Amino acid sequence: MPHYRAPVADVVFLLEDVFAMSRLNNLSGFGEMTSDVVAAVVHEAARLTEHEFLPLNRVGDLQGCKRHADGRVSTPEGFGTAFAAFAEGGWIGLAADPEHGGQGLPYTLSAVMNEFSSSANMALAMYAGLTISAVAAISTHASEELKRIFLPPMIAGRWTGTMNLTEPQCGTDLGLIRTRAVRLDDGSFRITGTKIFISAGEHDMAENIVHLVLARIEGAPEGTKGISLFIVPKFELRPDGALGSPNGVTCGSIEHKMGIHGNATCVMNYDGARGFLVGEENRGLAAMFVMMNEARLGVGAQGLAQSEVAYQNAAAYAKERLQGRAPTGPKAEGRAADPILVHPDVRRTLLWIRAFNEAARALMLWTSLKSDVAHRSEDDAERREAEDLLGLMTPVVKGVLTDIGFDNTVKAQQLFGGHGYIAEWGMEQFVRDARIAMIYEGANGVQALDLVGRKLPKDGGRAVTAFFAELHGFVREHASDDAMTPFVAPLEHGLDHLQSATTWLARNGFKNPDDAAAASTDYMHLMGLVALGYMWARIAKAAMIKRRAGDGVAAVMDAKLVAGRFFMERIMPETALRLARVVAGSDAVMAMPDDMF
Amino acid sequence: MPHYRAPVADVVFLLEDVFAMSRLNNLSGFGEMTSDVVAAVVHEAARLTEHEFLPLNRVGDLQGCKRHADGRVSTPEGFGTAFAAFAEGGWIGLAADPEHGGQGLPYTLSAVMNEFSSSANMALAMYAGLTISAVAAISTHASEELKRIFLPPMIAGRWTGTMNLTEPQCGTDLGLIRTRAVRLDDGSFRITGTKIFISAGEHDMAENIVHLVLARIEGAPEGTKGISLFIVPKFELRPDGALGSPNGVTCGSIEHKMGIHGNATCVMNYDGARGFLVGEENRGLAAMFVMMNEARLGVGAQGLAQSEVAYQNAAAYAKERLQGRAPTGPKAEGRAADPILVHPDVRRTLLWIRAFNEAARALMLWTSLKSDVAHRSEDDAERREAEDLLGLMTPVVKGVLTDIGFDNTVKAQQLFGGHGYIAEWGMEQFVRDARIAMIYEGANGVQALDLVGRKLPKDGGRAVTAFFAELHGFVREHASDDAMTPFVAPLEHGLDHLQSATTWLARNGFKNPDDAAAASTDYMHLMGLVALGYMWARIAKAAMIKRRAGDGVAAVMDAKLVAGRFFMERIMPETALRLARVVAGSDAVMAMPDDMF
Repeated sequence: MPHYRAPVADVVFLLEDVFAMSRLNNLSGFGEMTSDVVAAVVHEAARLTEHEFLPLNRVGDLQGCKRHADGRVSTPEGFGTAFAAFAEGGWIGLAADPEHGGQGLPYTLSAVMNEFSSSANMALAMYAGLTISAVAAISTHASEELKRIFLPPMIAGRWTGTMNLTEPQCGTDLGLIRTRAVRLDDGSFRITGTKIFISAGEHDMAENIVHLVLARIEGAPEGTKGISLFIVPKFELRPDGALGSPNGVTCGSIEHKMGIHGNATCVMNYDGARGFLVGEENRGLAAMFVMMNEARLGVGAQGLAQSEVAYQNAAAYAKERLQGRAPTGPKAEGRAADPILVHPDVRRTLLWIRAFNEAARALMLWTSLKSDVAHRSEDDAERREAEDLLGLMTPVVKGVLTDIGFDNTVKAQQLFGGHGYIAEWGMEQFVRDARIAMIYEGANGVQALDLVGRKLPKDGGRAVTAFFAELHGFVREHASDDAMTPFVAPLEHGLDHLQSATTWLARNGFKNPDDAAAASTDYMHLMGLVALGYMWARIAKAAMIKRRAGDGVAAVMDAKLVAGRFFMERIMPETALRLARVVAGSDAVMAMPDDMF
Repeated sequence: MPHYRAPVADVVFLLEDVFAMSRLNNLSGFGEMTSDVVAAVVHEAARLTEHEFLPLNRVGDLQGCKRHADGRVSTPEGFGTAFAAFAEGGWIGLAADPEHGGQGLPYTLSAVMNEFSSSANMALAMYAGLTISAVAAISTHASEELKRIFLPPMIAGRWTGTMNLTEPQCGTDLGLIRTRAVRLDDGSFRITGTKIFISAGEHDMAENIVHLVLARIEGAPEGTKGISLFIVPKFELRPDGALGSPNGVTCGSIEHKMGIHGNATCVMNYDGARGFLVGEENRGLAAMFVMMNEARLGVGAQGLAQSEVAYQNAAAYAKERLQGRAPTGPKAEGRAADPILVHPDVRRTLLWIRAFNEAARALMLWTSLKSDVAHRSEDDAERREAEDLLGLMTPVVKGVLTDIGFDNTVKAQQLFGGHGYIAEWGMEQFVRDARIAMIYEGANGVQALDLVGRKLPKDGGRAVTAFFAELHGFVREHASDDAMTPFVAPLEHGLDHLQSATTWLARNGFKNPDDAAAASTDYMHLMGLVALGYMWARIAKAAMIKRRAGDGVAAVMDAKLVAGRFFMERIMPETALRLARVVAGSDAVMAMPDDMF
């Protein structure tokens, strides 16, 4: 069975040494976040996921979810107990408003838990993640009455949440939604339609399920401007808050998927189910986007999470598996062969994954802290700056961390040779589970279009200008620091490429939208590389300082510097290639006649 | 259900217009290969795979193979019938010696069938492919008596073949083989040991199974110098050739795999089974390598095959799926949305796969023709040249076509959004099936080491020198042809990068073998890019000529030129990145202490 040790020390190092989280103590919820408290929270997240989630990962893959003839869905053995432990630990409401049962702690710590739990058991973690996202959407947009009814049981984990967007004819293009809402005299609605790909749509782990559903109110405008958001509970609620009769929503079937078998991906049939409007009529997409943005960061972290657990298992295997000899001569003379870790190509593969993981974790936490600032700061300028960066980085975190995270699970699997292809070893499950993260919450091509088409031009390019300014500032600040040159010089080079690409897009993308769209995926990865390179430069700086402090962590900090150097030498040069593809334009892409594809 | 149309026209164009196969008519088996005959063979390969193999692809994935309590193994419904049709069509012995029932036709046509059948049903095609490889090994190394006994029923498809190398403690490092052979008085051997990952190891589709087994004869030297190759039939043979009693070889279990469920991957237990020595004692690896080299080309073609079928389905979906509008405004005004093919990022993805597939097919056929020349030419110099190139390209075809082929199945799956993750659509099966090709027949990291450590330095670098000379010759020849500049200029640029990398390896790899090993995978991909770029330049030239002939194929030839331009603009620039990684050396790779991984 695969093993997993949550990267507690790395998280604490990033939060304290690299990002100086304690400096944010003016934000609500951050005041009591002393080093000790942060460490205790992170340790507890590690304990829970290692002990309760990990042992069920393969069980969940093998057993999957079963739909019974009456529409009930059974989850894999043990899932209910593990989910209850998660809820009892207060993790669902960690960052939620104390007024409704939350703890009001930093969202960033919830993001840490999201990474750990997704490494240990992604299918199980999704039940929690969707509930957390639904809590966020309800908190932001619903009326006080709806909050009072729905938030406490969701935060307690007695009720879970779902997101209902997709329909058979409607995926990315939400303007095609057909699900109808008919207004009733009491102000509630009757919802009718079919939703597909609904994660955690039906299961046996909660007393009630709170579906957030996009639908079109009778007479609403066509397209995206006529879509509203509704809460549709699985069971109706009596005036006293107790559960009433089943609402008109049922699971029609469970999809047979490539992976995340432990999560019930349902076709949900709404047949005149009672729903409650969340936020304003016809403004449902805006409300859902709040949920989607947090969910996108969470999905980005799933890419990292699978990459991390795959790395840990591949590194362990490389130390144990004896096969062949080192190119420079035997290293384990007394044994039949050397551990395969002696092979430079094996080390290269492991370092590649590692160099990504540590920077990706930094990027995820950096962006999460921006989210905390954006939601909690009382300084308008600070809040606006954080919002800008959060918006800019959300598609990058989602698209790049899941693309590379998936590739890394494949790389890690490769080190096992034939054993990597055999289910018992668990490596192929990581590949299958990680694959979905590139698709859901907006396929990565859609993330790239969001970045190039919306986030870049927004407010006259204010966000990207600020991002460039921050990186240039860092480069300038360390220009005369020789120890930092191996990190700063490649970063500056990559930043040049990113700026050239941005200028090219500004010049050409407006004139010819096809140029922008054809460049979008490569541009997103170019920005991802630069963002990850910036993270490495910041990690390197903190590691050098911590190393000099000489508090027994020198070996760990030196290892970080090696991984960072590897990133700069092997991964960062890709920025030139991405730029070349961006400026290749759309001529060849558009020249192929449709019928020749 | 996924669809598949074998690329008949493309194969005929490559064989006739690009590689002028008819000029090889002095080779045995090529004399009767007129255009009509070649076209007829390729059409028949298409018919058989589209009609007999394709409909069983999903059936095979769903049903898999079942081992019964008595050790028998059942294959999926219909597999036996389809395999019989393949055998009855003469495809197993297509290139085999007519003396033993073969047709003596070009191996290249067998390679074409391998691509088609692997697209239509990879798990099923493997039963045939392993038999063809076993026929090749027996033909080359076994005694006349063994050939007489085993080849005719194998070529007729009544008996199938397997390769038995791997053991639990022994994968890449075949020196660790423990399976023992004890000599009997009659000159045969008793074989005892356990082999794992044996594809087609036991099944119900043939009367007998001919296992080719690596084992160590009592008293043989340690390591790879003490390994011999044996034929071990499932059933013993009576003196009259009829099947006798079961030999001491049984299937202990079937592996649970990520994909190719329709192929029975067995643990095979040899318990004093009677075996017959193939070739010389202790020279088993050399004999097995003949089989492995052909098998490696075949596995490379599997990467292409999965990429091709995934492309076809993604292209069809992109034309049908309505979602969103083109960036430049609606294209399908009367409909709810445009087909997603209007999106530049979708077109980019499709063109990417297509630009790879057409060049990969060319590379596969070019290399296969070299194999025919190497085995059949009577001109020593011509044969040696072809052998050199075949040896150089084998790891490139295996490693690069399977790496990129797999990536392409992932790209094609991505275009389906959530539907790509659902089993019913068939796209996720292509990903799972394609994944094994990067692993078996020598994991791709091993291919890279074979290229850098063996094939490059062999005979003083004669093969790579000849490869460079051929490409330089092509570049020079077309230097003043403006129409060819978009193809020749990027090719020359890539060739420069490859030569720089080769020089760097020659200078540093000998001094420090870690440098060569750390560079190996990037070097292999660099050579792959240049080889594929060369193929595109040759395709472009032939397409321009054919286009001018104006025989109604202008649109198809123009489409090739677009795909080729896309390759040169978007894919070829990767050579610079690969060079940067090669010359990064092994310092960072080796600097990480083992216990820090």
